[in-house]
Parts: sequence; C-alpha cells; structure tokens
Amino acid sequence: MNINVMDEIKELEKSLGNLSSAQKILLATDGSVTTILDVLKGHINVKTLVQEFRGAEDVQAQELGIDKGDTVNYRAVVMSHDSKEPLIHAISLTPVDKLTNNFKEDLLKADIPIGRILKKYNIESRREVTHIGAEKPDDELKDIFNTDSIMLTRSYNIIYKDAVLIRIKETFPYSLFRE
Amino acid sequence: MNINVMDEIKELEKSLGNLSSAQKILLATDGSVTTILDVLKGHINVKTLVQEFRGAEDVQAQELGIDKGDTVNYRAVVMSHDSKEPLIHAISLTPVDKLTNNFKEDLLKADIPIGRILKKYNIESRREVTHIGAEKPDDELKDIFNTDSIMLTRSYNIIYKDAVLIRIKETFPYSLFRE
Repeated sequence: MNINVMDEIKELEKSLGNLSSAQKILLATDGSVTTILDVLKGHINVKTLVQEFRGAEDVQAQELGIDKGDTVNYRAVVMSHDSKEPLIHAISLTPVDKLTNNFKEDLLKADIPIGRILKKYNIESRREVTHIGAEKPDDELKDIFNTDSIMLTRSYNIIYKDAVLIRIKETFPYSLFRE
Repeated sequence: MNINVMDEIKELEKSLGNLSSAQKILLATDGSVTTILDVLKGHINVKTLVQEFRGAEDVQAQELGIDKGDTVNYRAVVMSHDSKEPLIHAISLTPVDKLTNNFKEDLLKADIPIGRILKKYNIESRREVTHIGAEKPDDELKDIFNTDSIMLTRSYNIIYKDAVLIRIKETFPYSLFRE
C-alpha cells in the first residue's frame, strides 16, 4: 500500500529537523535512485556485501506476496561513487521464481544497480513506497559510513505485472546529501 | 532513444554554471515530477492553459510513433503550489487512440497532474529522457514565471506497453529550485 510520502516526510522533519531537497527526493521518489546518484555524485557503482538465496520468512512472504519458505534472492549492497564515498546501503529481496533468465543472471552477477538492470531490459514497472523513517545505525552501518549519525531509511516495492518484483530497503546517514 | 543524462547535465553546467541538486534531479529523473514537487514545495496543483485535440504534425508523429494527422491531445499546464508560485511549465502530447476511457477522462478533465493519474490507475510504465537543455524564454514563459532568467528544459516519453503513451516537455527558470 502506498503511503503519503509528503506527510511522512513532514513528520520526519518534526523530529529530526529540516531535510535537504536531495534527502527529501531520495526518500520520496518513485524513480531510479541510481539515476539520481549518477547526476548528483558521478557514475555510481555497487559493491555487493551479501548475495544468497534464502527461504522467505513469514513477514517477508506476506510483503512479497509469496508463500513462506519460497526462495528469495537476498542482496545487500553499498552504492558509492568510484568505490570511494559510500552513499546508500540497500537490501533487496527478490522472489526468484518470477524472474526471466537474463534478468536473473544480471541480478545474480551482482555489482549492477537494479535501476540499470530495469533500464537495460526496458522493464515497465511502478514503485510503491511503503515506509519512510529514521533509525539508529547498527554496528555494520556505523562501520560502512564511518559515522554514528542517525540514518534515514525507506522501503519500497518495484511492482511488475501486478506483483512485487523486488522489495528494497535503502538507508543513508542524515549527515549525507545535506547540500 | 535514451540519452546519457549525466553527460548532458555536465555539458549544461559547463555553459550555465553549477546546477543545484534539485535542478539536476528534476532534469534527470525517470520518476514522477509531481511527487518530487509535492515533497519540495507542498501539494502541487496544475492549472491548464490549453487543452485541445490536434492532428499530429510530421515531427510529432515520428516522435510519438503514430501517423501524421492522427489525433493527439495537446495540453499545456503550469504546475504550482497552491496556485501561487509557478514551478514548472509542461506541455504534453498524447495520442488519444491509445487511451482507455477512464484514463482519457481524467486526462481531459484537466487539472490533475499526469503523475497522479498514472498512480491512480497503477500504470506500469517507464520514462525515457530524450533531451535536456537550456533555452531563452519566449514572452509567454517570461510572463508566467515573471522573470527573464534562462530556462532549463527537458523532454521525455512515458512508455506504456512498448509505445509512447505521453510525450512531455518541461521547462522551469534557472533561477528556481536553487536551494
């Protein structure tokens, strides 16, 4: 279900203080985040931290519209510019049964941002933001971004042929994209 | 054909000077511009300046993938916040034969941003930016935005079922979205 991104962002600003234009757009957009980072920071690379098949847990199965135990591709990446400054941490869950072979190959080949894969295959889809919020970083995120800053985060679904193709959770420090 | 938005924006910055993050994103995004304006400025309205059926001219027909003379819906609008500050001038061309009745009705009812219409009908689509540039404002644009500022502009297609559903040209002053 779509949330009202405008209201969620207003709420967030009440508790955290003002967000920059870039932060608000990164949390709200239904377009490619890769494209946005490309023009803000220069050509974006992804570094894959984890990529593995997992059986869907209860909540995941519900969110993805599949059965508990169905195979999903779990992928955790860091998007960065020239593998230097880390910009966004992203976790994606993809029910593998739904993928065509070429698309699956590219997704598993890793290190290609999902936005670019969708573009390559001219995929017509829509994105539905389901959560926008702030959270304290765990040790892994502190380590990746080298900061204790509070994190901005959102979750969204990429919908393709009326089903969830990919569910993504993106996280970045409040201290980033301030300009 | 997709252009390389990153390169186009770099070129633009060489001639105009730096663009802000918001400007770069507004020129490059393949997501809903309405959503972006909503979170940057507050709930966006559109005011329709012109809406009429026209026969497609040569170039238009080519761009839209239809025959010369086929009927297109021509719509010129100004997107603004609370009908006050004008933010973006947009011209859209829509081959009317391709539309379903409900969608057509909403489009002709005017005053609903296209991004919201697509969302309402859960349309799965993709956007393909075909031009990014700068141009001098004509008298109408000077009048709408009350400025002589050079204008930033882009054109893009919303593709649905492998055909151009809508072709859009958006224009806004270089002096806007600077923060």
